[in-house]
Amino acid sequence: MSRADVIEEMKQRVYEANMELPNLDLVKLTWGNVSEINRELGVIVIKPSGVPYKDMTKDQMVVTDLKGNLVEKDSLKASSDLATHVVLYKNFETVNAVVHTHSTNAVMWAQSGFDLKAYGTTHADTFYGSVPCTRQLTENEVRNDYEENTGNVIIETFLDRKIKPEEVPGVLVSGHGPFTWGETPLKAVENSLILDEVCLMAKETELINQRISSIPSYLLDKHYLRKHGKNAYYGQ
Amino acid sequence: MSRADVIEEMKQRVYEANMELPNLDLVKLTWGNVSEINRELGVIVIKPSGVPYKDMTKDQMVVTDLKGNLVEKDSLKASSDLATHVVLYKNFETVNAVVHTHSTNAVMWAQSGFDLKAYGTTHADTFYGSVPCTRQLTENEVRNDYEENTGNVIIETFLDRKIKPEEVPGVLVSGHGPFTWGETPLKAVENSLILDEVCLMAKETELINQRISSIPSYLLDKHYLRKHGKNAYYGQ
Amino acid sequence: MSRADVIEEMKQRVYEANMELPNLDLVKLTWGNVSEINRELGVIVIKPSGVPYKDMTKDQMVVTDLKGNLVEKDSLKASSDLATHVVLYKNFETVNAVVHTHSTNAVMWAQSGFDLKAYGTTHADTFYGSVPCTRQLTENEVRNDYEENTGNVIIETFLDRKIKPEEVPGVLVSGHGPFTWGETPLKAVENSLILDEVCLMAKETELINQRISSIPSYLLDKHYLRKHGKNAYYGQ
Amino acid sequence: MSRADVIEEMKQRVYEANMELPNLDLVKLTWGNVSEINRELGVIVIKPSGVPYKDMTKDQMVVTDLKGNLVEKDSLKASSDLATHVVLYKNFETVNAVVHTHSTNAVMWAQSGFDLKAYGTTHADTFYGSVPCTRQLTENEVRNDYEENTGNVIIETFLDRKIKPEEVPGVLVSGHGPFTWGETPLKAVENSLILDEVCLMAKETELINQRISSIPSYLLDKHYLRKHGKNAYYGQ
Repeated sequence: MSRADVIEEMKQRVYEANMELPNLDLVKLTWGNVSEINRELGVIVIKPSGVPYKDMTKDQMVVTDLKGNLVEKDSLKASSDLATHVVLYKNFETVNAVVHTHSTNAVMWAQSGFDLKAYGTTHADTFYGSVPCTRQLTENEVRNDYEENTGNVIIETFLDRKIKPEEVPGVLVSGHGPFTWGETPLKAVENSLILDEVCLMAKETELINQRISSIPSYLLDKHYLRKHGKNAYYGQ
Repeated sequence: MSRADVIEEMKQRVYEANMELPNLDLVKLTWGNVSEINRELGVIVIKPSGVPYKDMTKDQMVVTDLKGNLVEKDSLKASSDLATHVVLYKNFETVNAVVHTHSTNAVMWAQSGFDLKAYGTTHADTFYGSVPCTRQLTENEVRNDYEENTGNVIIETFLDRKIKPEEVPGVLVSGHGPFTWGETPLKAVENSLILDEVCLMAKETELINQRISSIPSYLLDKHYLRKHGKNAYYGQ
Repeated sequence: MSRADVIEEMKQRVYEANMELPNLDLVKLTWGNVSEINRELGVIVIKPSGVPYKDMTKDQMVVTDLKGNLVEKDSLKASSDLATHVVLYKNFETVNAVVHTHSTNAVMWAQSGFDLKAYGTTHADTFYGSVPCTRQLTENEVRNDYEENTGNVIIETFLDRKIKPEEVPGVLVSGHGPFTWGETPLKAVENSLILDEVCLMAKETELINQRISSIPSYLLDKHYLRKHGKNAYYGQ
Repeated sequence: MSRADVIEEMKQRVYEANMELPNLDLVKLTWGNVSEINRELGVIVIKPSGVPYKDMTKDQMVVTDLKGNLVEKDSLKASSDLATHVVLYKNFETVNAVVHTHSTNAVMWAQSGFDLKAYGTTHADTFYGSVPCTRQLTENEVRNDYEENTGNVIIETFLDRKIKPEEVPGVLVSGHGPFTWGETPLKAVENSLILDEVCLMAKETELINQRISSIPSYLLDKHYLRKHGKNAYYGQ
């Protein structure tokens, strides 16, 4: 397939995945964006900046190089969150697609500043342990290269805690909101949906039982590993 | 009616009941499954594993024997939760259909580890007393025959507490989620809907009145018995 | 207009008002009923018992006399809650229509056993003071003539507290759910919608501010009286 | 363009913005209103009083002068909240459109009597600091010129706290509900949507972390200023 054809297909997938965000009630207004990377071709495709979902077309998807520079004539401006996506792609080598939303339940957890613990198997089926909440950015990190530093604090969080991005495909940025990722744009959107749902379930569980703690590690192992990796066997 | 015709009808009912789960907002993605048993014919029909609801057809429904072995050529794989359904059918002899979901409100209660008390008549109209939450499975039970042991801990819970499955057609599996059952697949799905709604109402009631206790047993008796058993007379 | 024509129109209004309950998300399954009375003709029209909303037709509406006895040949059975409606009509002379639902937020308040205080003007625009929660019925009241005694405890509550049913067109029956009323079936349904919404707002307000108290009586007066009675002037 | 043409266009915008309120689930029944001002022409266009959304037409929009007096023959009555809108237009000179709703989450905060703090960037993207809650109106302010005094207490709140209406395009009126504003009717409605969503997120955040505090001022600055004013650059 030609380079142009591959990029056309990426645009189609990124477009469709972006449109799933309002369909799944994960965004209001223009509060979200999806991108995909092709490392061999050296391109990233991402949602354009500020275009309402109802008016968006496949051809408006923005193509950049691996540093986020526009590479097409007459391109729209890329989503301002591109710089965060670029950092994630650079450091998480197995990740092919990234999603950012302001979905209600994931934002409320990100605002709390707390990690999202695994209180049940719905969580464990997708996230192999707590979904971490980053530290707050410093004044300097916010004033200079804010969007890039948002990516950096995510990487720092995963490195410091020795979490593999393949095993925990999402993060909560303190005071801000969720980023998720996956092998394809649709899979990354699916992880946004699951993260939002698990945030809702966790909050309600804490209201019912104020002394709740994470599920035992053997149950976490079972649920995560029956669905992921070489011994996976599970489908509902 | 021929054996083949009976199975065709079971497939149709199981298909329709499965499709009700997303229609009623009881599942996201593929997070649920419905089955039906015919003890005379020695067959169980259940949702196939991992097929998205929007692509699912009646003919994809999976037929097994009473131990859960596939009995049709070219059959899809059965839902991985089949082993749990098999245990329920074996031990709950009056149950003809079983449903498992990850519906939001029932999961949050299951994650809390608490029984769901009867705080009102909406509960009592369907569940004759608390809906029990099982104990947590042990490491050994999770590592070996997990899905079967999920069924076993449900049976243990009902036996230990002397609860009749006809009178409390549902359970919360600790840290996991709900199973419900009924005389038909649609009735079992209806019980999933009611369980989820009653979980939501109970949580909110506890937030409003932190000293709330179950309704008196005479009110529980009245509401349950006016709708079930030989003296039933009620319809809204 | 002939007696038959008047009854046909009542059936049409009661049918349409019943259908509004699922449209407005106030009922699941068959959990609700609406009736209308015509005291001159001596008839009540009410939803039939146990008919699913999607199958219901105008002609299935049930006609009874003022004591709740069926008056049409081949009539379906009336909703079992008819006995409660009859008591309300007998004692609340200005009420022409009654609605009962198990709407989520009104049920959770009814289950708490607490009155619903007026925390804001949304409440005050319709309910002139707290919406009372009845006492719990005694064992004897539940065992004998339960549905009639449900009506009696509502009447007792309004008499004891000197509340006028025109000024507070709804009630919470402890451990059960809401009843509302109005001049027409649609108006009574509207009051069910408002009661449910105000219950939701009140619960959330209590979570945000645990020391919240009712709005001052002069604000309650202003909002209620600018919309009701001879000096009404308000429309949004 | 003729004066008549300008007013026709205002009616169209005000009509469309009013219709967005039920579309966005910000109002039930008739609980909301939108207006627009044209200071040069000396006219305000506002929703008529008490007309259900489903029956409303563009031609029913009501035209008044800057004091709220009707200026068209055969005009419907203006929304009773017009007097509040008039006060806001008179004092907030950069505001071209005003919206009032009883949206669930904004009302629950208004009922709590508390300011809405900025717990995250979703808030900071639109509101440059806390959204203030007014003091309660006095008995005298409620009994006389209530709707006008509702406007006055909003102005007092912004003056006392030195808040610019361009920077915080909304307010919570204690025990009542939200007003928002903007450069156009649709923008003012968008601010109502955001305010309601941010109220929901804030409530949930407080439930998860009872010691939560506002985001640091440098993060508030960054998010607000990257979207507003001369150095704005951001689009999602």
